[in-house]
Amino acid sequence: MSKHCGRQSIRFENPIAIITSASTVGPKEGEGPLAEYFDTILPDSLCGEDSWEKAESKIVKDTFEAAIAKSKIPIENIDYVISGDLLNQNSGSTFAIRNFSIPFWGIFGACSTFGEGISLGAIMIDGGFANNILVGASSHFCASEKQFRFPLELGTQRTPTSTWTVTGQGSIILSNDIRENCPRITAITTGKVIDMGITDVNNMGAAMAPAAFDTIYNHFTDLAIGPEYYDLIITGDLGYVGHDLVLQMFGEKNIDLEKNYSDCGMLIFDKNSQGTNSGGSGCACSAVTFAGYLYKKLQQHQLNKILFVPTGALMSQISAQQGETIPGIAYAVAIENL
Amino acid sequence: MSKHCGRQSIRFENPIAIITSASTVGPKEGEGPLAEYFDTILPDSLCGEDSWEKAESKIVKDTFEAAIAKSKIPIENIDYVISGDLLNQNSGSTFAIRNFSIPFWGIFGACSTFGEGISLGAIMIDGGFANNILVGASSHFCASEKQFRFPLELGTQRTPTSTWTVTGQGSIILSNDIRENCPRITAITTGKVIDMGITDVNNMGAAMAPAAFDTIYNHFTDLAIGPEYYDLIITGDLGYVGHDLVLQMFGEKNIDLEKNYSDCGMLIFDKNSQGTNSGGSGCACSAVTFAGYLYKKLQQHQLNKILFVPTGALMSQISAQQGETIPGIAYAVAIENL
Repeated sequence: MSKHCGRQSIRFENPIAIITSASTVGPKEGEGPLAEYFDTILPDSLCGEDSWEKAESKIVKDTFEAAIAKSKIPIENIDYVISGDLLNQNSGSTFAIRNFSIPFWGIFGACSTFGEGISLGAIMIDGGFANNILVGASSHFCASEKQFRFPLELGTQRTPTSTWTVTGQGSIILSNDIRENCPRITAITTGKVIDMGITDVNNMGAAMAPAAFDTIYNHFTDLAIGPEYYDLIITGDLGYVGHDLVLQMFGEKNIDLEKNYSDCGMLIFDKNSQGTNSGGSGCACSAVTFAGYLYKKLQQHQLNKILFVPTGALMSQISAQQGETIPGIAYAVAIENL
Repeated sequence: MSKHCGRQSIRFENPIAIITSASTVGPKEGEGPLAEYFDTILPDSLCGEDSWEKAESKIVKDTFEAAIAKSKIPIENIDYVISGDLLNQNSGSTFAIRNFSIPFWGIFGACSTFGEGISLGAIMIDGGFANNILVGASSHFCASEKQFRFPLELGTQRTPTSTWTVTGQGSIILSNDIRENCPRITAITTGKVIDMGITDVNNMGAAMAPAAFDTIYNHFTDLAIGPEYYDLIITGDLGYVGHDLVLQMFGEKNIDLEKNYSDCGMLIFDKNSQGTNSGGSGCACSAVTFAGYLYKKLQQHQLNKILFVPTGALMSQISAQQGETIPGIAYAVAIENL
């Protein structure tokens, strides 16, 4: 039987298969280094809709439909959808799936949402509560800037530590139907909310790095393994600033993460040519990097064991305006070719 | 082994115990018909904080601490916290538990959040992934009005179909440690997102009623039972308007719900004296009615089998401003004395 290991982790007795993935990104992501790995690159950010929020819902709907079609699973055999996003009241997700007729779990983990969703889905399938679960997370640069920071039309200058919210959606289908060449979820480590007092909404990497460190460190402790167990340890959207902080925190524990640690926010944009400063961010940053790039690298056996750690900054526009600090969280998911 | 029944339901082989509950409400709720059942009635809505949002987080923190204290479970034995609220980016919950050091699942089901949280917690415990889980949901009248409708200072007139967001938080602890006189969770039915085209943000009851009907109807079908199985079927916050619509929809199916169907929004305020129009609403409406009133009625065996159905309207301020309709969802939880 699957069991809790230590305080925060679960090791699955019957590792859950990720049987398909689908990804959609915006035009800017489609000009980045991972372009060839995405299923759909949108020609513009509005997708024929009349608002960025509606565009995000359309991206969610279309990508979910693409994932279901690729899986060849009849929609009535998808037991649950688990989805979340950055928009107030999860509206990117809820408006997208209102016609799907699939029981729904709405979640919010800010940019860690994809990790939270995979973890919950894995629990449900391993526990025998479902056979097939659709999991996704989305974000939209324009909708996020409008909601969290400044109107885009202002052309506000971006600070060096700021990150660029990824436009897109990543979907996967988890299943107990073990198909050939499917990466499997072998363990999860669920994050705690950690707040180290960062207040700069233009430095999300620093706000989330302590949570990423805590989750990864406890993953190693709970499972009695070290970083060398994995081909790649990859956080969600810490960017260059947060990535360096995580390295530093592990360095203080005499754990060397230099060799195999990266961050989705560093991979998705080209630092030198795309003007994205510290890197990519947003729920979609880790979701599309996984559903596009990492999933395919696992299927091609260029990666065989990864620790995927989406990270979230749990602030709102109002909390920032009221001078609150920014709590962070991170969910670690171990994914392996068995 | 616990199994999926039909499309949307799970019957638990080892019904999960609800070993404790705690509830906090605001002054208005403390003047209502259920006042005697609440653990804490706040003297004012600010709780010593300087914003309504911070007040909500304080209420969440204090009520969670009260639930843990009442349970006598050491905090390190609480495996997870599951929590959500109405504030943008779940900030009522995340700021409350940042110092708890308990792995966290953030969820969003609007006013159905408490039902979603109980359902997820029950799955995790029944599946052997946790021993003790703290579940809660909160809302705050002032913070909600400010966020979703108009500044309170405007003194906007309220329509007859409008509901009054409950200020408060309800917490319960789910456990596999079956203590004496603890109600048990025997089954759940997970809602689908249903949108019947309602656009009036002052008529949440009508927006959510189709989802409540759908979930309850599928609960009966999946488990092959009728309404007579329960002493009480109680929705979350449909109020008088939504309650009547649910009765009408069941009437069209020749199913009589007249005898044993009520709504938390009808119980929490006095219709004639409190000026709450269609009734109470908000995540806290069902959460405090359960954690305060219903839990005690179950413990006293005045109720022995209830179907508790928190209901949510999945709109945001922006979706309403953009002319979108209001999707609804409902999660049914069967709770019984065994």
